[in-house]
Amino acid sequence: MQLHYIEKIRQTNPLIHNITNIVVANYVANGLLALGASPIMADAVEEMEELAKLSSALVLNIGTLDSVKVASMLIAGKAANQQGIPVVLDPVGVGATTYRKQVVAELLQQVKFSAIRGNAGEMAQLAGIDWQAKGVDAGSGAEDVALIAQMVAQRYQCIAAVSGATDYISDGQQVAKITNGTAMFPKITGSGCLLGAVLGAFLAVDQQNPFQAVTQACISYAVAGEIAAKALQPNQYGHFYLGLLDSLAQLDDQKVAEYAQVEVIGG
Amino acid sequence: MQLHYIEKIRQTNPLIHNITNIVVANYVANGLLALGASPIMADAVEEMEELAKLSSALVLNIGTLDSVKVASMLIAGKAANQQGIPVVLDPVGVGATTYRKQVVAELLQQVKFSAIRGNAGEMAQLAGIDWQAKGVDAGSGAEDVALIAQMVAQRYQCIAAVSGATDYISDGQQVAKITNGTAMFPKITGSGCLLGAVLGAFLAVDQQNPFQAVTQACISYAVAGEIAAKALQPNQYGHFYLGLLDSLAQLDDQKVAEYAQVEVIGG
Amino acid sequence: MQLHYIEKIRQTNPLIHNITNIVVANYVANGLLALGASPIMADAVEEMEELAKLSSALVLNIGTLDSVKVASMLIAGKAANQQGIPVVLDPVGVGATTYRKQVVAELLQQVKFSAIRGNAGEMAQLAGIDWQAKGVDAGSGAEDVALIAQMVAQRYQCIAAVSGATDYISDGQQVAKITNGTAMFPKITGSGCLLGAVLGAFLAVDQQNPFQAVTQACISYAVAGEIAAKALQPNQYGHFYLGLLDSLAQLDDQKVAEYAQVEVIGG
Repeated sequence: MQLHYIEKIRQTNPLIHNITNIVVANYVANGLLALGASPIMADAVEEMEELAKLSSALVLNIGTLDSVKVASMLIAGKAANQQGIPVVLDPVGVGATTYRKQVVAELLQQVKFSAIRGNAGEMAQLAGIDWQAKGVDAGSGAEDVALIAQMVAQRYQCIAAVSGATDYISDGQQVAKITNGTAMFPKITGSGCLLGAVLGAFLAVDQQNPFQAVTQACISYAVAGEIAAKALQPNQYGHFYLGLLDSLAQLDDQKVAEYAQVEVIGG
Repeated sequence: MQLHYIEKIRQTNPLIHNITNIVVANYVANGLLALGASPIMADAVEEMEELAKLSSALVLNIGTLDSVKVASMLIAGKAANQQGIPVVLDPVGVGATTYRKQVVAELLQQVKFSAIRGNAGEMAQLAGIDWQAKGVDAGSGAEDVALIAQMVAQRYQCIAAVSGATDYISDGQQVAKITNGTAMFPKITGSGCLLGAVLGAFLAVDQQNPFQAVTQACISYAVAGEIAAKALQPNQYGHFYLGLLDSLAQLDDQKVAEYAQVEVIGG
Repeated sequence: MQLHYIEKIRQTNPLIHNITNIVVANYVANGLLALGASPIMADAVEEMEELAKLSSALVLNIGTLDSVKVASMLIAGKAANQQGIPVVLDPVGVGATTYRKQVVAELLQQVKFSAIRGNAGEMAQLAGIDWQAKGVDAGSGAEDVALIAQMVAQRYQCIAAVSGATDYISDGQQVAKITNGTAMFPKITGSGCLLGAVLGAFLAVDQQNPFQAVTQACISYAVAGEIAAKALQPNQYGHFYLGLLDSLAQLDDQKVAEYAQVEVIGG
């Protein structure tokens, strides 16, 4: 029987260290609090190693970069690896500029990630597949998204989560396909970034089963969005932004199990 | 017949590159998404030139400055000029400190702006008029605000938009006077900054008619605020903050035309 | 008879300069606006001295640090001391890392603070008491929280405010114990940081009576939270985040007096 993830998170309040961007720092912190985790957002080089000792997971998000932040990410990532805590990468807009590609390449070379989460355009870039990307939003292309998830997972020996209308999670062999969610997700900024942080919280409480932890994280988050959207008109994006926090706070493992629409292939 | 701006923005999802402040980055991104544009918030020196090639407009906002960000603004501004995409300046609190005055002077010298948006105090400063300003909020003075708009437009060869209870837009000759809006706007942080970004989105889809694009942007935004405020009690600022996003998402060109209270003088 | 603080703040709109973290900058600005104060969030070294001349209070919050920001804090703090305006310290997560301890020690050495606000874990750290702290959230320990407030106040010759389910305010002799509030406060990010800024606004309008100003600030804020929470279900954290802003905007001194549950001991 599988872990009751949300219950476990609420019982243990794992400290999730985020090095993230100025756009979503607030939303990610509020989202982790709503879920029951304990967020710390810090990126001073001076405190990265010490924070790795206190934290239960690390989440690196490249949404707004600068050279100082990159240096902090490298130190934090290596320290987290040494401590044996899970590290999540969110390669925001990696296809958009050479700088982002270089930073992500360096992170992937120097840090071992438990999971990488991105939209199809970002993940295709990591898989080395040509995909039309515009800025930080997902592009569209002809490749099979499930395959992209498998390729990223194999290439970087981690769990790959490709977010979109349908989510695909892979450990390189198996692929979980999740059809929960809402079309409102891409209409608010930070919905993907918050999911990246939620992955950190789920991995923190079940490091031994990363595929299951990431899959459950994606299902739970998609269900929270689905429930929040139901109570709203189609384009009440402002209210969805907040409603999603309420929905995360009110979510429990049983509700997730009831709503879950997931199919696992291969393995 | 004039362009259906909002429809055009939703069809083309122009990528708007914002170099903005840590206070409003989230709100500006959410506001652009609600309108139908595609925001990218990035300020790493390393990626400014490449982003200019991907973007349909650039918005420079000096709300929270540092020397690195200023360097990025200069590179991004010049690259945008070279690409021929519109550039918007939001000189937040320019009257407050010598540093802000110097940064804005340098930006105005090195970058050609399509539009400048500010409150009366900020714009008076740019026009070289004495005006009592306190911090980043609009001060009050005896000068004619329409004249300030004209002076800024003439001095910097751009469209000038002076925001306030009444908005004044000028191309140096004509002045559009907009009386839509709500007294709630100055009660939430970032309402002016988001308007600056909205100017970028409107200019992106109609670069040939900047006076009309900026005027329509200001009307549309004021109408969105008016509609959001109507549904609330006078001091529900928190709910107005979010309601404005919903209102932007639900706005269309026809609704804007119905509500518009605008008068164009001169020209 | 005591000052009508909220009325005075709304009449004079004191400019509160905040050097704060990227997580809460937006919320703090919106909260100060809702209260009736005028926020400025700026941390460029170049403008710190000039802003001290314009501002009515300075609030230093160490939530997300870097060496540049620390340099700005020191300049701003000393300039504020020279101008004779109140300075508030919010030592976010000071117990978590050596770097934070060092920065706070340097700030306390070089800047005279009118008030320090933190949770029990943070304030115990400043008092030199062993206290279990995890990250930036309050830990729990066996010491008497009222004593911690007294010790911090005596040690740093300032008003100490220890926030929690019960708030304790001390000037080193007297201790005010406030039982207003709501369990939702720790469930949203920035609720403590905003209170730190609110302290700045109250001190700005009554610098002569800092103990009373800080006590009234804490009561008013706790009452605003209490009223906001009443209208919601227990875990609607998202709506509480915004509802608190509405509640601050709708608060007045009479309502605060009606709701206040405060007891002052000693003195």
